[in-house]
Amino acid sequence: MTLTANTRGPLAGLIVLDLTRVLAGPYCTLLLADLGARVIKVEMPEIGDDARHIGPFIHNDDGPPTSAYFFSVNRNKESIALNLKVEADRLLFDKLLASADILVENFTPGTMDKLGYGWDVLHGRHPALILASISGFGQTGPYRALPAYDMVVQAMGGVLSLTGEEGGPPTRVGVSIGDIGAGMFAAIGVQAAIIERMRTGIGKHVDIAMLDSQVALLENALARYQVDGVVPGPIGSRHPSITPFGVFKAQDGYLVVAAGNDRMFPRLCDAIGLPDAKTDPRFATNPLRCEHHAALKMLIEQALAARTAAAWLHHLTSVGIPCGPVNDVAGVMRDPQINARGMLMELPLPNGKPFITAACPIQFVGEEPQASQPAPDLDQHRASLLNELGV
Amino acid sequence: MTLTANTRGPLAGLIVLDLTRVLAGPYCTLLLADLGARVIKVEMPEIGDDARHIGPFIHNDDGPPTSAYFFSVNRNKESIALNLKVEADRLLFDKLLASADILVENFTPGTMDKLGYGWDVLHGRHPALILASISGFGQTGPYRALPAYDMVVQAMGGVLSLTGEEGGPPTRVGVSIGDIGAGMFAAIGVQAAIIERMRTGIGKHVDIAMLDSQVALLENALARYQVDGVVPGPIGSRHPSITPFGVFKAQDGYLVVAAGNDRMFPRLCDAIGLPDAKTDPRFATNPLRCEHHAALKMLIEQALAARTAAAWLHHLTSVGIPCGPVNDVAGVMRDPQINARGMLMELPLPNGKPFITAACPIQFVGEEPQASQPAPDLDQHRASLLNELGV
Repeated sequence: MTLTANTRGPLAGLIVLDLTRVLAGPYCTLLLADLGARVIKVEMPEIGDDARHIGPFIHNDDGPPTSAYFFSVNRNKESIALNLKVEADRLLFDKLLASADILVENFTPGTMDKLGYGWDVLHGRHPALILASISGFGQTGPYRALPAYDMVVQAMGGVLSLTGEEGGPPTRVGVSIGDIGAGMFAAIGVQAAIIERMRTGIGKHVDIAMLDSQVALLENALARYQVDGVVPGPIGSRHPSITPFGVFKAQDGYLVVAAGNDRMFPRLCDAIGLPDAKTDPRFATNPLRCEHHAALKMLIEQALAARTAAAWLHHLTSVGIPCGPVNDVAGVMRDPQINARGMLMELPLPNGKPFITAACPIQFVGEEPQASQPAPDLDQHRASLLNELGV
Repeated sequence: MTLTANTRGPLAGLIVLDLTRVLAGPYCTLLLADLGARVIKVEMPEIGDDARHIGPFIHNDDGPPTSAYFFSVNRNKESIALNLKVEADRLLFDKLLASADILVENFTPGTMDKLGYGWDVLHGRHPALILASISGFGQTGPYRALPAYDMVVQAMGGVLSLTGEEGGPPTRVGVSIGDIGAGMFAAIGVQAAIIERMRTGIGKHVDIAMLDSQVALLENALARYQVDGVVPGPIGSRHPSITPFGVFKAQDGYLVVAAGNDRMFPRLCDAIGLPDAKTDPRFATNPLRCEHHAALKMLIEQALAARTAAAWLHHLTSVGIPCGPVNDVAGVMRDPQINARGMLMELPLPNGKPFITAACPIQFVGEEPQASQPAPDLDQHRASLLNELGV
């Protein structure tokens, strides 16, 4: 007997077996699950996904604490505990595999081969199966066998060198973009392979490296280096080639003002009471303003010191100047637009209390998002899965 | 007569009409083009994609300069110049639309309606067409009509508040993750819609907000705030809940060391000559090390000061401790793994000189990447497109 896929969402009909742990892989399968694929996490007995042991933790009166970290990226998935080194569990895994469209893993390259589930074996037995492998450095190249973490690939991929205060040390992006970027590219690769399979009937092996993914996010830094011959470094919270466009301090805190073009700049000067800046030859064009960005920033912040950030945002918005608050996480949770978009999804924790996770940002006009299920307990779906498989 | 799709790559068979400008939209269609879709940029006559006017610029002996920025995110696309407010051009656009599977746009919400190409009109005429709309704030909600830029959504979405030195100002991520994140989620949404359409025959309207996309990248920050009740702020280049795991200074520069777990930490102490730290009660467990991270960092950096970053990387790798260089852009371009993975793709500029752009990070094992075409000149493919359409 075989598993039945979901019937709702764009990826209805697809079944994903998920061997991934921690973040890059689980983020990929979260996206697939949110879009309607049936995702079955296959976790190590007793231990489970390593993320179950990473904080912050939520207290439970009975039973072990719940990892809020795990809870945030594993909604809409089922869980079964299997040890792929134990024969009986391998037989069960083989039954699950026979129903699966996609297998996702983020072991160090070579591990799947050692487990007896390398691509050649899988492809031989299940020619339509798609395998997605997410690793630090990819399935090829001199570093393929090395372990990697988010911080390592952020550093090697160049993003750290571009982030931080001008003249200061390289700075980590405050979220795990090394993991999350790779997870997103993996979801794109999996879907591309599904689209191809609909034509050919044949699955392929998607190979996503966290390091490659960082290089793909470098935007214009490679271009700037090749054109100018100068190695780009961190420049704080301004734009390298548009001014004024960045974070400015008002009376009580920060706001963003994005008024870099020559049409917008005089309007900004009028709006904040800087008539002299409007005609100052140092600020006459965007390239000149970029050259004199420090002087301009000082003038703008002197003017902004007269009112609060909220007052300026109200005023600047009313005169059509792109701007925005610098929200901390509390501000994000209060933000009217973020709430109106349904981006803060409340799900019940194992202890029954509600907990907010970021919703799926892929929306379809005129469609209400599906009801979501909270992240599973370890092995929560064993009985229902075995029942479905007729075991 | 209708357009013919490409025959190679997983997205062979799909035709994308691309009205997007600058970065979020073009990044989405770059991914689709790299994966084999035929992407046709429809650009404003004379002006073209705004990114053509954003630096850095490459000098050409004859003709206007080439934007390296534009060149980096528009390979594998064709270009035709059409003014959608001019009747003859609209007729041509309608002919292109009749061949298209997907239309991607990143105008402010409402613009497509004003142009007479709102979703209702498009869906009525072409029920199978998928429309992907990328905007600052999305097609719904109180801010929907407001303009937004990368910097604005980075700030509103909370990522800035998590990035930077401990106690310092909020810091922009050094790449345009506000645009690129939205472009990636849009590519995922487009592919999901294609997969659904293969079952239903009906297209849908994908609605991607740059702000939503930032919230979806917040990782564990929402969880930390809800569990601890403390608003998370920037913490430099360390991890909030794993220590030591971050950037450290060696004799001549920085390196990343990721040795946070209790098995790895004593090995690190041995490797860098800190036997006392191994038994120091302040560093006995990961939670204790997190509490005393500043003291531990000082000790580690005192030890690392004895050798160069390269020497330490060689040594730490040899004893199995995850670590890596902090590459600047020049380092990225020299990196053996990044080069071995083919992530630096050389394409000819209009002036004939080679130029490196980041390759597609979505790879398939055993498949050579397709040959790529450089970004098009404005209107470069008019004649061939008209010929194909029989006009």
